[in-house]
Amino acid sequence: MKLKKEISTRRVEAFSDSLFAVAITIMVLKMEVPKGYHLSDLDQSLNLLATYIGSFIFIGIFWLNHHHLFQMATKVNVKILRANLNLLFWISLLPFASNWYDTSMLEKAPVIMYAGILFMCNLSYKLLTHLIIKNEGKRSMVAKMFKKDIKWIIIIIINFLAVVMAFTSTNWSMFLLLSLYIIWLIPNKRISKIY
Amino acid sequence: MKLKKEISTRRVEAFSDSLFAVAITIMVLKMEVPKGYHLSDLDQSLNLLATYIGSFIFIGIFWLNHHHLFQMATKVNVKILRANLNLLFWISLLPFASNWYDTSMLEKAPVIMYAGILFMCNLSYKLLTHLIIKNEGKRSMVAKMFKKDIKWIIIIIINFLAVVMAFTSTNWSMFLLLSLYIIWLIPNKRISKIY
Amino acid sequence: MKLKKEISTRRVEAFSDSLFAVAITIMVLKMEVPKGYHLSDLDQSLNLLATYIGSFIFIGIFWLNHHHLFQMATKVNVKILRANLNLLFWISLLPFASNWYDTSMLEKAPVIMYAGILFMCNLSYKLLTHLIIKNEGKRSMVAKMFKKDIKWIIIIIINFLAVVMAFTSTNWSMFLLLSLYIIWLIPNKRISKIY
Amino acid sequence: MKLKKEISTRRVEAFSDSLFAVAITIMVLKMEVPKGYHLSDLDQSLNLLATYIGSFIFIGIFWLNHHHLFQMATKVNVKILRANLNLLFWISLLPFASNWYDTSMLEKAPVIMYAGILFMCNLSYKLLTHLIIKNEGKRSMVAKMFKKDIKWIIIIIINFLAVVMAFTSTNWSMFLLLSLYIIWLIPNKRISKIY
Repeated sequence: MKLKKEISTRRVEAFSDSLFAVAITIMVLKMEVPKGYHLSDLDQSLNLLATYIGSFIFIGIFWLNHHHLFQMATKVNVKILRANLNLLFWISLLPFASNWYDTSMLEKAPVIMYAGILFMCNLSYKLLTHLIIKNEGKRSMVAKMFKKDIKWIIIIIINFLAVVMAFTSTNWSMFLLLSLYIIWLIPNKRISKIY
Repeated sequence: MKLKKEISTRRVEAFSDSLFAVAITIMVLKMEVPKGYHLSDLDQSLNLLATYIGSFIFIGIFWLNHHHLFQMATKVNVKILRANLNLLFWISLLPFASNWYDTSMLEKAPVIMYAGILFMCNLSYKLLTHLIIKNEGKRSMVAKMFKKDIKWIIIIIINFLAVVMAFTSTNWSMFLLLSLYIIWLIPNKRISKIY
Repeated sequence: MKLKKEISTRRVEAFSDSLFAVAITIMVLKMEVPKGYHLSDLDQSLNLLATYIGSFIFIGIFWLNHHHLFQMATKVNVKILRANLNLLFWISLLPFASNWYDTSMLEKAPVIMYAGILFMCNLSYKLLTHLIIKNEGKRSMVAKMFKKDIKWIIIIIINFLAVVMAFTSTNWSMFLLLSLYIIWLIPNKRISKIY
Repeated sequence: MKLKKEISTRRVEAFSDSLFAVAITIMVLKMEVPKGYHLSDLDQSLNLLATYIGSFIFIGIFWLNHHHLFQMATKVNVKILRANLNLLFWISLLPFASNWYDTSMLEKAPVIMYAGILFMCNLSYKLLTHLIIKNEGKRSMVAKMFKKDIKWIIIIIINFLAVVMAFTSTNWSMFLLLSLYIIWLIPNKRISKIY
């Protein structure tokens, strides 16, 4: 008794894709349009737009990594499916965190929450990677690509510091979060090579 | 005259995936952010977050089961498509039920409605399973996996009790609903084996 | 120079599925929860629930038909893609029409609009069927299945009458619209046979 | 070490499809229903409906072009994935721009923003095409189809003029934007041929 193997990762990808796409798009619904009609009135929305761009890039980066991971995965098991749902849960909270952050002016609590949810996303992704590698075996392609991924360890550490820092200085916390984007932009050479 | 057989279950899965993903994500839109900006202000939202987590896990569990079911199904017919739409209908009402429940403090009617919709989801899923087994035949893989599924019968009975109980004690009703999650977490060994 | 033939209908289906799923699900967002917490307070929402069920069934029926149609289609061309977008446009207006209808008590204008949008959906679907049959040829499976579809002609006529009737009697118009559901429930024997 | 080649473009398409579908559908959520219940009350919504139709056609056209492009693409790389996310970002801002435009009466700033976002969509699409052609090689099908696409260059120039013009005359700007639709309707003969 075998599963339709060739499609075993397909549906996880389809469901995740939908959820990523909805999470990324509904944030726009919460963005209030400016009340006036001069270009200067856009100033009111600059804050919202900045958060939107940040969250869009963030979800975009997670989609990209999720894509790379499942491109190389050949099978899934129940644990992987649950770990994937766990990742999607934290992703789905981002619109809520963005929204609270938006209404505030760099207050402590919303920054802690935003940084904390990013941290949970990163941690959940790492767990998902770990379970997929375990499932595929040490000699698998996934293992070769993602095993010793120093980049993600650095990302998780910086993100953790950003959460802690938010309790004392929101400016430093935001600075650390922004630095994550730069690290993400560094291409993973092992992945680039195989395309 | 034959259908493109190999893709006959694909589109049902794609449509269901989209609907699951949208239902799970739009609940966030209804969650109001706290009015203050202290961590203690999150208290206002703890209730909302708890319902959100509950509904997310619930839809997640249904997606997982739906995934297992269609992984093993090899074909569909019109009745199965209709039963699937019926399941998706009840799933799509969850954001509405969560929302009403959220605005109340464990009042009777919202708990009855929430438990009732969960019950209809469970019943619809059972019906879907039944029709797929009937379509595939007694010796099919689906039949072997899902035929005598005691777990689902227990789930349906507990869920039914939760609906009835809600008329007299919402606390007991919620307790029964929460116990469903524990039953769901028990892995189906027959399914785990074949991955 | 050939296209990846086997996937040529896949993406139209995926895009349509997403749009059907979003259209069907976001209607829930517009449904206001009752203000009180007694079961009798659900009365306020019964109207909304009825419209929701009606629109859900309606979109569900269109998804089913769209599914049957593209199961048998083997290729698409630019005209078919445009006709499909046209159908999706009218489907996407249903949440708006449902919403206006909901706030009214069987007033003329909202009924005319609702019936009119259903009519445009039916007409657009017929046009899509026509273009696909033309593209596949007279001897194709699609042609055999959908060519002389008396059911759809009756549906279009009744729907047209429902629009006209709405100008004088909204009750009769609603009655005609409801009768459409019964016609839809009659299984298409030609389609049932091939599954 | 090779990727599952045959599916390498599949997931980009699935994710993009979801995002296109959500972006196109959620605009309806922002459309307020008329306050009265006479057909004449629809006048209040005519403005909204016109913008909705415009934005729907616009996203529809982008989906069509995206579809043509990826039908012919055989592989993707990280740069292409990023360029695709960039295009989706601008598409996802359209509901926001439509919404601001809707509340105004052809004021300057909303028209500039709307035209500007359309321009960024066009530019991002051109960049995506460029990267795909580069990846597939000069002799590839994509290159033959999309290399010297005078139509897109004209579209980008007219769209650029529409942005500039909006600073002095919103009427002329709107006229230029509307003329884009006519250009889009001219079928690309090279694409039509291969279907």
